[in-house]
Amino acid sequence: MSYATETPEKIRKLIREMKITGPTAGMANGYAQANLAILKQEHAYDFLLFCQRNPKSCPLLDVTEVGSPYLTVAKGADIRTDLPKYRVYREGVLTEEIADITSLWEEDMVGFLIGCSFTFEDALLNNGIPIRHIEEKCNVPMYKTNIECKSAGLFKGVTVVSMRPMPSRDVPRAVQVTSRFPSVHGSPLHIGSPKEIGIQQIDHPDFGDAVTIHEGEVPVFWACGVTPQAVAMEVKPSIMITHAPGHMLITDIRDDELGIL
Amino acid sequence: MSYATETPEKIRKLIREMKITGPTAGMANGYAQANLAILKQEHAYDFLLFCQRNPKSCPLLDVTEVGSPYLTVAKGADIRTDLPKYRVYREGVLTEEIADITSLWEEDMVGFLIGCSFTFEDALLNNGIPIRHIEEKCNVPMYKTNIECKSAGLFKGVTVVSMRPMPSRDVPRAVQVTSRFPSVHGSPLHIGSPKEIGIQQIDHPDFGDAVTIHEGEVPVFWACGVTPQAVAMEVKPSIMITHAPGHMLITDIRDDELGIL
Repeated sequence: MSYATETPEKIRKLIREMKITGPTAGMANGYAQANLAILKQEHAYDFLLFCQRNPKSCPLLDVTEVGSPYLTVAKGADIRTDLPKYRVYREGVLTEEIADITSLWEEDMVGFLIGCSFTFEDALLNNGIPIRHIEEKCNVPMYKTNIECKSAGLFKGVTVVSMRPMPSRDVPRAVQVTSRFPSVHGSPLHIGSPKEIGIQQIDHPDFGDAVTIHEGEVPVFWACGVTPQAVAMEVKPSIMITHAPGHMLITDIRDDELGIL
Repeated sequence: MSYATETPEKIRKLIREMKITGPTAGMANGYAQANLAILKQEHAYDFLLFCQRNPKSCPLLDVTEVGSPYLTVAKGADIRTDLPKYRVYREGVLTEEIADITSLWEEDMVGFLIGCSFTFEDALLNNGIPIRHIEEKCNVPMYKTNIECKSAGLFKGVTVVSMRPMPSRDVPRAVQVTSRFPSVHGSPLHIGSPKEIGIQQIDHPDFGDAVTIHEGEVPVFWACGVTPQAVAMEVKPSIMITHAPGHMLITDIRDDELGIL
């Protein structure tokens, strides 16, 4: 069985049954995967507003009803069991990495699904633009910048970006291709000099892995779905649950449906 | 003095001083105008979620802090005085139409600014696509449809659409041009048969004015910013304040900045 050609529903079932426990990259090809953030109701309004004010880093794909683990964008999915791995942050500190959060679920929790760059990476590849961290079989490099998010209530902090290096001839097409997908971070935030956005060491990312930048290549930076997690960690809510990096929720939304045109 | 070439800040000042009291169409050309909805805090989370779930009819441009009448998208603007006319709904019933709502403002109110189709109408005109209600100097025709919004808490109801008739040869370009502007309703919701979306009498709009549809023309329908007002009227909050039709808030956002590419 190839996970690449399975339906999202089938993959979610295998995850729920713990037959899939690793990263979801390359599974259910053509369907959008999503970041997850779960917060208590007391923070839900501010977080929702934070997402509205920072749509490039926090493009919301779905929000559950208070106390409900169910989604509108993934039929029959349960956000407590249908991701392979979760991270639990208590008072801003990572305390557990677990495969099922049913026992931690509370009646005043709200789940937020945030668009993931896997969707636009497929579009870049389909346009002949190679992606270094895929070539080097590692995680995308991510950096904290000096670009302040617009704050909302308790939620404030800097934007985290992901970086993909490419020959400068590919940059205009990369801008076009990703602009079509505003709900998965959209067009780049910055092209070129890392220092201009406060990144001092391009070979030492704050999250993920460093990748090779070849002579003559330009680093291109996109707002990253890690931003809300990084911001929430500073806010130090009593509890916040997220997906573990790379262990995403696979939705029923086709990547192409997220294209604005 | 021509209002068309004035800055948004100057026009807002003239409105605040009651030197401008009529509709804002054609003022501060090139800058985005916006719909306004003010609700009490108790409804703010549900309304924000409603907008997130229905981005084509309710594209949010800004949300004020609770109790604050100030915006991030219009420097120095006060939403209590800087629109020429407001409507006040009590328990879902229109009770007043007034030029200043300072005396009605409460410390638990939240203002929501929602994108307005003026922005994409300019883009259509710039692309050589004529707009009938502008030619006929009347308001755009708007209709309730059978397209259910995604509900959020108390907020539920049908989508309201605006209609612009055009020769079928112009339809593909109209789709392209408006797709570029997701934050002002984006691409059409429906093209052609009004009955398919539950509109029985195209010459009797539910809001605005009827316009001529010439032989061979196709009606094209876009999600409309009146949707949240129509929905909120059914929810019957104790108080809800909106702009009066055509009497919009003029923001500092250039229309072109709202283009996704």
